Amino acid sequence: MKREELIKELGYELPGMSVPAAMYLPIVQTGNLCFVSGQIPTKDGKLAYTGKVGEERTLEDAQAAARICVLNACAALKMQVGDLDKVKRIVKVQAFVATANGFDQQHIVVNAASELLFQIFGEDGRHARTAVGVNQLPMDATIEIELIAEVEA
Amino acid sequence: MKREELIKELGYELPGMSVPAAMYLPIVQTGNLCFVSGQIPTKDGKLAYTGKVGEERTLEDAQAAARICVLNACAALKMQVGDLDKVKRIVKVQAFVATANGFDQQHIVVNAASELLFQIFGEDGRHARTAVGVNQLPMDATIEIELIAEVEA
Amino acid sequence: MKREELIKELGYELPGMSVPAAMYLPIVQTGNLCFVSGQIPTKDGKLAYTGKVGEERTLEDAQAAARICVLNACAALKMQVGDLDKVKRIVKVQAFVATANGFDQQHIVVNAASELLFQIFGEDGRHARTAVGVNQLPMDATIEIELIAEVEA
Repeated sequence: MKREELIKELGYELPGMSVPAAMYLPIVQTGNLCFVSGQIPTKDGKLAYTGKVGEERTLEDAQAAARICVLNACAALKMQVGDLDKVKRIVKVQAFVATANGFDQQHIVVNAASELLFQIFGEDGRHARTAVGVNQLPMDATIEIELIAEVEA
Repeated sequence: MKREELIKELGYELPGMSVPAAMYLPIVQTGNLCFVSGQIPTKDGKLAYTGKVGEERTLEDAQAAARICVLNACAALKMQVGDLDKVKRIVKVQAFVATANGFDQQHIVVNAASELLFQIFGEDGRHARTAVGVNQLPMDATIEIELIAEVEA
Repeated sequence: MKREELIKELGYELPGMSVPAAMYLPIVQTGNLCFVSGQIPTKDGKLAYTGKVGEERTLEDAQAAARICVLNACAALKMQVGDLDKVKRIVKVQAFVATANGFDQQHIVVNAASELLFQIFGEDGRHARTAVGVNQLPMDATIEIELIAEVEA
């Protein structure tokens, strides 16, 4: 099954990609590496999750937000290479979780992103990863996720 | 116009590069990718901006600090490849903004960095980007910016 | 001397590598670049340092924790390429220090990591680096360090 169909099968929707208004891009390719900009949980043009985990947001909220970030990153990859099946490997994920002091389960939050990547890309979706907490993210987003992918040359 | 002249034209000055005293380097090249270490807003050997945005520092202060970080990153690139015109592409920018709880305009702060890169490098300066807030940076710096650039082989 | 022997000579021990239970990996290689996942100061299966610097933890504690992260990253590299002597270059280190508000010596903490990399890898261990503070890390770890290394093709 094509990965884009698989995303639907899993009950998700691959969003369209909106190019940011600022002087940067959602994704840049150099050689066969694609660097995807930090994705926040924007859905249908609105930020779906704001607020910090351990305060306004539950672990489950943050996991849902993490999945939206992954879908947005997939949209950026599709925009760059035309077809998710041309992604050879998810190489590296870096996740920043907006966190109230005292909450230390960022890895559990980010597992939701890792698992969705594995569901979509299979073994090629298994990546190196760094997950940390931060005190604030842009527009009070609950999470921000960037990734590096290897694509067909 | 050469990019180094363009920097002057824009009213800025390309600083000299000071190699850190510790066991790390301002920049490392592997293949045609250059990884620039996190730059803080040091100017003429002094840290020009300390303190958190949303507390001691305004948005405008932080934007000015962001531009200094970009100039320092350019100095590192020049040190590595000899001439900014040998930079083929700014690939990725990662920015950490020292942030008081409640300030969530990190993306607006970092737009100042993105815009300056675009002014200096034109279309080649458009990059993937991640901007986050953190509660503290080294030496109480207001912002720290690292980047990855593709250079001529 | 082989680097693994050098680690013993320096009084440290190269740990075994435990593969995380989640859908991500300790290390992923693409071309001749290895991306090592964020390492926390786990030793003998237990997290050796928790708590924030400037609060529950001293600078010296955090430096000791940073060295453990480096050893764990070396274990990941060995797992990937079989022998630390096949590492051509430590390219980039990114370190997140769990930090109480007001502590701004993250660079001094991370110098311990940079110095150990230099002791193990010599000139090939000199890397680009970013060191920042964050308010919380997974499992209340004191520090988390990821790195990129170039390895023999």
